Amino acid sequence: MSHVLVDNLLVIGTGLIGGSFAKGLKDRKTVSTVVGFGRNQANLQKGVEAGVIDVAANDLDAAIKNADVIFLSVPTLAVQSYIRLIAEHKKPSAVVTDAASVKGEIIEGICAELGKVPEWFVAGHPIAGSEKSGILASNGDLYVDHKVILTPLENTTVEAQKRISDLWEALGAEVVSMPLALHDEVLAATSHLPHLLAFALVDCLQGLASHDDIFRFAAGGFRDFTRIAASDPVMWHDIMKGNKKAIMSQLHAFKDTLSMLEQAIEADDSECILESFERASQARKRFGEKNL
Amino acid sequence: MSHVLVDNLLVIGTGLIGGSFAKGLKDRKTVSTVVGFGRNQANLQKGVEAGVIDVAANDLDAAIKNADVIFLSVPTLAVQSYIRLIAEHKKPSAVVTDAASVKGEIIEGICAELGKVPEWFVAGHPIAGSEKSGILASNGDLYVDHKVILTPLENTTVEAQKRISDLWEALGAEVVSMPLALHDEVLAATSHLPHLLAFALVDCLQGLASHDDIFRFAAGGFRDFTRIAASDPVMWHDIMKGNKKAIMSQLHAFKDTLSMLEQAIEADDSECILESFERASQARKRFGEKNL
Repeated sequence: MSHVLVDNLLVIGTGLIGGSFAKGLKDRKTVSTVVGFGRNQANLQKGVEAGVIDVAANDLDAAIKNADVIFLSVPTLAVQSYIRLIAEHKKPSAVVTDAASVKGEIIEGICAELGKVPEWFVAGHPIAGSEKSGILASNGDLYVDHKVILTPLENTTVEAQKRISDLWEALGAEVVSMPLALHDEVLAATSHLPHLLAFALVDCLQGLASHDDIFRFAAGGFRDFTRIAASDPVMWHDIMKGNKKAIMSQLHAFKDTLSMLEQAIEADDSECILESFERASQARKRFGEKNL
Repeated sequence: MSHVLVDNLLVIGTGLIGGSFAKGLKDRKTVSTVVGFGRNQANLQKGVEAGVIDVAANDLDAAIKNADVIFLSVPTLAVQSYIRLIAEHKKPSAVVTDAASVKGEIIEGICAELGKVPEWFVAGHPIAGSEKSGILASNGDLYVDHKVILTPLENTTVEAQKRISDLWEALGAEVVSMPLALHDEVLAATSHLPHLLAFALVDCLQGLASHDDIFRFAAGGFRDFTRIAASDPVMWHDIMKGNKKAIMSQLHAFKDTLSMLEQAIEADDSECILESFERASQARKRFGEKNL
């Protein structure tokens, strides 16, 4: 029993995240028209053909003027560059949200452009994704049973928040609100740092003389551990820069634990190694029970 | 068209690896009788009931005397403790193999016990596993399409090698031979170091004050990246000690790459970050194409 929640949806940046948002709402008939905007017209055209979006915009100002909801799914550092144009051209009633993995930097960027964060901007971040990217990887069920974190500010209107929440819930997601700083800290630990470590490991191994043998004899553990290293380099570069402070803080904590283990292995300190592995194994199993 | 390749198989250490070896050969009717030996009789009895082994041995000397093939699937550092008993009691024609993830330490341990590595011992390592463990996790198809590395020494007889190769091939595995030192280097890079990093990350995160939030908002990338941190702590402690030199060497190489990235992020050196992520992403995608 779905009904139309938004008449004209504009998705700026039609990669996996924006495309899946568009396709999911279209599949559920909760949107009348999805307009897509991106830097690559051929790519947008493929999105139209695949039924991910309805219309490929070639005039961004006009598309903004017509939109009731604007979804910004561009790399973290690019959000800032669209916000002034949106503020100038949008309908008074239109609400705007984003999907960037970093929230502090986005908010600072918007403040730098507009002097404050407008009451119609709802900062958001869906905890979903894939190492795949691009509009053709779009999946209308990507967000089902996934969490979406909103980090509203004091002046964000309740109406704008509800508008965005309703769309995510229509996609099957669970919407949670949390303070912006906590979001950035949690994501640094569970997503940004693991990506940094996976990129570092694979970059390290591919530079070794024996890398053919290394990759040839890698098994399932390696495949899972390094899957995220296939992710989009530009997107992750932006995240590293955008959430630098929190990521560096988590990295330092990680390096302390790694040094502790390194010293224990060097010193044949079995008790220390076993205690650390045991704590990790128990914690990971508890996590696994809740998240199959 | 399978036929019996071994009359009496003794599996010492009936966890996932030994149990899956036993069950796979039983499922394919390539073994007449599988005798299992382990420290826990109740556990062995469960293995008999589940059809993983035929008989639970309670007299190890007698079991060794009757065996035609002995499969040692105990933690790396325990292999040494069984080899003298085997050498004393085994049939002259019996061949012995192991499944430990570290080969140098095993061979040194056997030399220390027996003065040399006997010609009937074939060092082996199946590149397969799971974060699950225990006899009830046994899967007769665990080794299908997986690689098994043998690291025979100069004096290992061709007959012994063939005997062991034939069993692995009957299980659907691909058998590859390589020098012992290369094995330990490759496994340090693709398996042992990733496990160390995953254990370190999860141990680090579980100690943070915000760990409830951290695990609560973790997504698929984190789940895959840390899956191996749920592995058996004792087994991985043994591997860290057993392959210490190669693991430390790979760890130092990894730390160099990580430091390079840390400095680049601190210094906002986008070019350096992007180049590293790009190299990693390309290498991981090439690996993924060959190993879905």
